[in-house]
Amino acid sequence: MSAASIASFSGRSVLVTGGAGFVGSHVADRLLSQGAEVSILDNFSTGWHQFVPAGARLVEGDLLDPGAVRRALEGCEFVFHLAANADVKDNLLQPRKCIEQNVVGTQNLLEGMRAAGVRGVAFASTGAVYGEATVVPTPEHAPFPVQTSIYGTSKLAAEGLLTSYALGYGFRVWIFRFVSLLGPRYTHGHVIDFWRRLRRDPTRLDVLGNGRQKKSYLHVGDCVSGMLVAIGGSGEPINVFNLGHHEWVEVDESIAVITATLGVKPRIVYAGGERGWVGDSPRVLLDAARLRALGWAPTRSIPESIVETLAFLEASPFVNDRQIPPEGLPR
Amino acid sequence: MSAASIASFSGRSVLVTGGAGFVGSHVADRLLSQGAEVSILDNFSTGWHQFVPAGARLVEGDLLDPGAVRRALEGCEFVFHLAANADVKDNLLQPRKCIEQNVVGTQNLLEGMRAAGVRGVAFASTGAVYGEATVVPTPEHAPFPVQTSIYGTSKLAAEGLLTSYALGYGFRVWIFRFVSLLGPRYTHGHVIDFWRRLRRDPTRLDVLGNGRQKKSYLHVGDCVSGMLVAIGGSGEPINVFNLGHHEWVEVDESIAVITATLGVKPRIVYAGGERGWVGDSPRVLLDAARLRALGWAPTRSIPESIVETLAFLEASPFVNDRQIPPEGLPR
Repeated sequence: MSAASIASFSGRSVLVTGGAGFVGSHVADRLLSQGAEVSILDNFSTGWHQFVPAGARLVEGDLLDPGAVRRALEGCEFVFHLAANADVKDNLLQPRKCIEQNVVGTQNLLEGMRAAGVRGVAFASTGAVYGEATVVPTPEHAPFPVQTSIYGTSKLAAEGLLTSYALGYGFRVWIFRFVSLLGPRYTHGHVIDFWRRLRRDPTRLDVLGNGRQKKSYLHVGDCVSGMLVAIGGSGEPINVFNLGHHEWVEVDESIAVITATLGVKPRIVYAGGERGWVGDSPRVLLDAARLRALGWAPTRSIPESIVETLAFLEASPFVNDRQIPPEGLPR
Repeated sequence: MSAASIASFSGRSVLVTGGAGFVGSHVADRLLSQGAEVSILDNFSTGWHQFVPAGARLVEGDLLDPGAVRRALEGCEFVFHLAANADVKDNLLQPRKCIEQNVVGTQNLLEGMRAAGVRGVAFASTGAVYGEATVVPTPEHAPFPVQTSIYGTSKLAAEGLLTSYALGYGFRVWIFRFVSLLGPRYTHGHVIDFWRRLRRDPTRLDVLGNGRQKKSYLHVGDCVSGMLVAIGGSGEPINVFNLGHHEWVEVDESIAVITATLGVKPRIVYAGGERGWVGDSPRVLLDAARLRALGWAPTRSIPESIVETLAFLEASPFVNDRQIPPEGLPR
């Protein structure tokens, strides 16, 4: 990645929404290591006090609370907007939540930025906006997709708010369509689901779908690097980048890595069906050529990332203590 | 259109949201003429009591009020969802309005439908979801667009809610991406803007942009027919149709028709620029081949539709009385 121009926020004041979460805390860490002043806005619905980096200013609050947004933005020049409801699998159980948190919440943030004169924002969108992509690997200009999940819909709406604000109010926006991420502080997704089940019963593993879903994953460290490379190498009012690995793995391959790492040999019981859940896309592989052209490339394989994720989970029993609802649990 | 299979709602109970508005009232008329029982939900923010057809059950209320939605849905089997904030040009002045009314309001309706067991819905989306299309005429599967307006963003989000509810909750949805519509009861858009200005001062006409924007328009009657043909001829869980004319006209051609019809010869003063406003797409022409394959075709030319629109405006001085804000005006 020697050719890449990595954005530096040294000496700049940056807000990270969701900065107590998986990706947000890594972004905050990286910015602090660059010498930035970092503020964090998090409501701790899925964030963790354990992840908040030392040296960051913490505003505990919700994007739906304009006062919290205003306080969080005080003195800031740029925003990494990573706070979100990321529950892609279960969004049909609480269909309003994604819209409130990811659409209305994002607009609250953008309105706060307008009022405060902050015009630069990087946003975590998702490959889910491609629905069931008809072109794989999927480029940013893939055919107009049908939205298959409220989660994807909410992220696409947030993208549209950002691009509209770029054109209408002079914002400069970086939109990143992530694949699923892995690595330290991962607390949500199939690896933790399988890990929890295998801790409970190492002799049997229940799997959604038929095990043949094939998806790409990315290490959170490579993701943070990708964002900084994109911001360093592009500066249009609107900048949209896929951010994913060129590799993908089947669920069954992932299970093989997980069970081998944990030293267990469960009987695998498939729920059946091509999709793991309603709105699940059975094939996810993003074409990240646009970002690669700026000099970025992943540094870890997907199996390496799975192993590192498991090491984090094994060393962090607290992530297994939080159940739904998360309220009232020890921090 | 002899080959087309037109949906009949005879004997069925149908809710038309926005049924006191331009398109909604025409839909309600057509359904009543088929022998349907029609309920209308309208908050009269842009609707008119003059447009509510005799024989329809009227619920005066807002999509943001769950009680009003519940009352409106009582006994209904199908919904035409036409209520919306349609102010594409000025949405940057009130950026939250489109999201509240078109996204949150649409989700309120869908949640009301879930609760009431209503599963069929036809929805008025917009060609604005294509942003500045790179392919013209623009088909439904055009390359993934960048959203250029909060209006388009809000409609695309509503589309995503419908398709997610189709997959997640067993809805059957028809999504129509309209071009701008013309005809009787038209009260919003460039024809009324020009008509108002020329009534005030027939010697001068101020025009946004450079007059070269080229767009397609459709007569509201052809639009209603198109929806019924689509519903009659398709029945997937998700059905997406462009709905627009194969003709398009430049702003200057439109002005020529308007001034000739009104018998005025104003000096034309252009504001300049390729776009009429931020987020305006200078070229709008939708590829409606999918709907045409079902036997639909427009029956009026665009100039004919402009002339008919002007005839309505001349005969309906009340539409010129309502200014922003519309509250408190005589109905």
